[in-house]
Amino acid sequence: MTYRAPLKDMLFAMNELAGLAQLSQLPGYEDATPDTAQAILEEAARFNEEVVAPLNRAGDLDPSSWKDGEVTTTPGFKDAFRQFGEGGWQGVLHPADFGGQGLPKLVATPCNEMLNAANLSFALCPLLTDGAIEALLTAGTDAHKQAFLPKLISGEWTGTMNLTEPQAGSDLAAVRTRAEPQGDGTYKIFGTKIFITYGEHDMAKNIVHLVLARTPNAPEGVKGISLFTVPKFLVNADGSLGERNDVQCVSIEHKLGIKASPTAVLQFGDHGGAIGTLVGEENRGLEYMFIMMNSARFSVGMQGIAVSERAYQQAVAYAKDRVQSRPVDGSAREGVTIIHHPDVRRMLMTMRALTEGARAVAYFAAAASDVAHQHPDEAVRRQNMALYEFLVPIVKGWSTELSIDVTSLGVQVHGGMGFIEETGAAQHYRDARILPIYEGTTAIQANDLVGRKTVRDGGAVARNLCAQIAETEAALGRHGGAAFTAVAAQLKQGREALEAVVQFVVDNTKSNPNAVFAGSVPYLKLCGIVLSGWQFGRAMLAADAKRAEDPSFHDAKIATAHFFGEHILSQAGSLRAAIVAGAEPVNALTAEQF
Amino acid sequence: MTYRAPLKDMLFAMNELAGLAQLSQLPGYEDATPDTAQAILEEAARFNEEVVAPLNRAGDLDPSSWKDGEVTTTPGFKDAFRQFGEGGWQGVLHPADFGGQGLPKLVATPCNEMLNAANLSFALCPLLTDGAIEALLTAGTDAHKQAFLPKLISGEWTGTMNLTEPQAGSDLAAVRTRAEPQGDGTYKIFGTKIFITYGEHDMAKNIVHLVLARTPNAPEGVKGISLFTVPKFLVNADGSLGERNDVQCVSIEHKLGIKASPTAVLQFGDHGGAIGTLVGEENRGLEYMFIMMNSARFSVGMQGIAVSERAYQQAVAYAKDRVQSRPVDGSAREGVTIIHHPDVRRMLMTMRALTEGARAVAYFAAAASDVAHQHPDEAVRRQNMALYEFLVPIVKGWSTELSIDVTSLGVQVHGGMGFIEETGAAQHYRDARILPIYEGTTAIQANDLVGRKTVRDGGAVARNLCAQIAETEAALGRHGGAAFTAVAAQLKQGREALEAVVQFVVDNTKSNPNAVFAGSVPYLKLCGIVLSGWQFGRAMLAADAKRAEDPSFHDAKIATAHFFGEHILSQAGSLRAAIVAGAEPVNALTAEQF
Repeated sequence: MTYRAPLKDMLFAMNELAGLAQLSQLPGYEDATPDTAQAILEEAARFNEEVVAPLNRAGDLDPSSWKDGEVTTTPGFKDAFRQFGEGGWQGVLHPADFGGQGLPKLVATPCNEMLNAANLSFALCPLLTDGAIEALLTAGTDAHKQAFLPKLISGEWTGTMNLTEPQAGSDLAAVRTRAEPQGDGTYKIFGTKIFITYGEHDMAKNIVHLVLARTPNAPEGVKGISLFTVPKFLVNADGSLGERNDVQCVSIEHKLGIKASPTAVLQFGDHGGAIGTLVGEENRGLEYMFIMMNSARFSVGMQGIAVSERAYQQAVAYAKDRVQSRPVDGSAREGVTIIHHPDVRRMLMTMRALTEGARAVAYFAAAASDVAHQHPDEAVRRQNMALYEFLVPIVKGWSTELSIDVTSLGVQVHGGMGFIEETGAAQHYRDARILPIYEGTTAIQANDLVGRKTVRDGGAVARNLCAQIAETEAALGRHGGAAFTAVAAQLKQGREALEAVVQFVVDNTKSNPNAVFAGSVPYLKLCGIVLSGWQFGRAMLAADAKRAEDPSFHDAKIATAHFFGEHILSQAGSLRAAIVAGAEPVNALTAEQF
Repeated sequence: MTYRAPLKDMLFAMNELAGLAQLSQLPGYEDATPDTAQAILEEAARFNEEVVAPLNRAGDLDPSSWKDGEVTTTPGFKDAFRQFGEGGWQGVLHPADFGGQGLPKLVATPCNEMLNAANLSFALCPLLTDGAIEALLTAGTDAHKQAFLPKLISGEWTGTMNLTEPQAGSDLAAVRTRAEPQGDGTYKIFGTKIFITYGEHDMAKNIVHLVLARTPNAPEGVKGISLFTVPKFLVNADGSLGERNDVQCVSIEHKLGIKASPTAVLQFGDHGGAIGTLVGEENRGLEYMFIMMNSARFSVGMQGIAVSERAYQQAVAYAKDRVQSRPVDGSAREGVTIIHHPDVRRMLMTMRALTEGARAVAYFAAAASDVAHQHPDEAVRRQNMALYEFLVPIVKGWSTELSIDVTSLGVQVHGGMGFIEETGAAQHYRDARILPIYEGTTAIQANDLVGRKTVRDGGAVARNLCAQIAETEAALGRHGGAAFTAVAAQLKQGREALEAVVQFVVDNTKSNPNAVFAGSVPYLKLCGIVLSGWQFGRAMLAADAKRAEDPSFHDAKIATAHFFGEHILSQAGSLRAAIVAGAEPVNALTAEQF
């Protein structure tokens, strides 16, 4: 078994930190009881461990390939994707009206984590399809919904997001793809899109491309972008597949990692125009695209957690197997398995603590999204939506940045063997490297966190979180005991650093944007560290209360929280210095001085 | 031009921080004046920029290949290596008696940095050859020296280090290769060695393998290891090549990076025994091997600096070229080159500051090695040798660990393009990953730093460094001005953290080794950060004094030092917490709890 879903930790985060029981009392979520959720997770674990995980290495060795406009995926992917669809896994989160299971995001999230841990490249296809479904649910016409949603949710068809163009990476204002109205409600689309994940493949009968383009006379910049559906095969009125549309995959990229996932260059309209239909209103494409992106950003954050978990498990397995050198404390005269060496433990604990911390924050965020959708009280919904939106760039940015460190440590634990491709540790290190880049780089996430999520409300959501963190500090202090007191102290200095930085951001973004944005990524990391530390503080209290039920698991949770406090939360002060005092030298050099 | 040697910064570090002028007054180094050194560096820059650097990408695309026991290197490597030898570059450091130039390590080190920055894979062959030369100079017989040294120093032949066996990675006590005396002064060698860099290749007429093996009845463990020379071709009395020896390359590894460098599995003695001769005395092989390893460890540290510099230059070039998004301060209405975005600057400054800091520490260490060899006063020699030996694990561990972060940032600066292999940024990220592993993992370096380099002398060398750092703090304080005062304050907290940690290490290693070794790598990193910060403090003072000579360069140095203080030196407190307070949770879990 190359991957085993960490069900205990997932259920702990869902039940003890994210409040699944309360969530299941909200209207619409009555079926999502803790028992049902556990049964679903167990089923997901079986499928991902047995069907999807074994294809991960195969995908690296025998990646997707392109020939004459067609993409052939890794042997086994097509069949696994059929099983994925038939098992209902694409629809966990989506409405029952269109064939989904309508479960909370808090239940769908661990399922996504498992799928991504099993196979990052494979999981990208459902990830992008989720985004397309969300956009059509929000802004699609009834015709769109009827034509596309049941097929997307059943896994018969898949979806894509077409944003990037050669001259427009992060900057959507520069999009040039054209959409010409044909007078019959359809448009002809012309342009080139790059970096289109699963933009062409052989796992589904049809691909629904969601494409950003400009109509004639549209305003310049992001206010003139509209969103269109451009299916690979046109869809007849009866739902059957019609003609092949004028969208061609002209090449796929040769990448550092996630090689099984085809990254396509798509050419629209080279043979008369690709037929598309408008989603929602003209010139509101960016808004709809953000719906897809918010979904995708959260999911990419889960990818970071997933690949970290996978790398951790592989490193632990190696460390328990590899015999090398006598222990430093002289407790054995022969070589021991390397998990007995303190530095190997430090590396494994770092991997474990970063991963568990990020998981707790992400699941907490998923629950906020659920409350924001289903709570009967509008004020509570609004408050939770603001909380969720604050957390999305942190889940995306922090969980993916740490996946670089975690997968790098995974290689290091393996020593020289880690550098040999056959070992498999290097694949995670290569695969993870895209995560802080796609769906908005960490800098883009950090800009969002500063601008829309902190300055716009004067730091209200951030300060509210700090107040809750202070309560946890107090509870840890009341509990007493060395580990609890130590974490309380580290949490306090972390929270105080965060408060100071939020004030700095709120005070200076308008007057000195270069100074604030010089520290925007450190601010995002500080949020990730402090919020993870907070969840660990809460986890310690919950683990202590439940200790008798499973002492080994709960003791490990407390020790991991303690480790996080001294080794990771302790970095808050340095980030504060970098943000508050460190902007000047970031901006000091002229371009020529670099 | 894909690489341009940073001559200004190299010469600044040599002249202002490592004291080249004083060094050139020592007996034997009279030729190494600053002017001569500059001329040598300029010549090295030309060769490496024009001949070696262009082969770096080719080596990744068309790596060394194995067929029927022979290894063919990347097209162009053989000719470049011939030019390298003919240019005298293998001999910069080595004695004139055997054809070398006999220059100080302080002059050889920037030459090595350039070679490695130009092409990490290519540079490994001379790197290992240097180690073989050092071992033979120290422990070889006259016959060894006459037979091998002129050919190795001229670059006609190359050398290797044969330590690792399948069951013995870092743990040399487990070496099993046998050496049977033949009664004629030779031995027959039998065994398998793995991970042998340039263990077989087509760039030289002969390969001199230095091999660890056990003689019959040798003591168990590391005290029973002897060192042998086993040339690929036996050498006749007249120096001509004789019969092919019984050493076969049975395969080479498929690696994450440094693909052009063949990593061989060597089989000794499958056809009757490989003929070897003893180096030095029986059972003292480990000691001699440490001579090679100390040379190689320092050089691998330089590899970390070199690949960081290369990645930095590539990222800067991209950032000055790529136009994307309007500036956050609204200073332009159009997209600008991304070097104008604060977070891109933050990433570039991080890459730059880490690299320059590590370079300054390494050059400072090289000078200490030179003084240790040539100073007329034995006490000064001894003191500088202790200093150099303290610094070697830091140069190796810190410079290579940071190269992971720097090359990762190099990918990030490129955005999505960084993940596409054609861009070349990903190669540095892959290549760098071996550096904290080979020639002793970071944990092995940290164990050395704790045991042999700190505890053995009761922390004397470390405390002496701290006293010198305090003097620099005072000088920065006397200078005044915001940047200088800020760096002084960060240096003070860093130095105090280091003092506290040294005390903790000295006090607890015997009584609680598991606690100390849980923090050994953080201790090594703390040393790297504080010593880099110290060199930056000295650099600020020197740059200010010399400002008028080149204001742009010296202002950039001061700003980079300021950046290092607030963004990197500020991490010292967190490392102190992790080391002094964080050991308990590192060791808390049972193996089963992972």
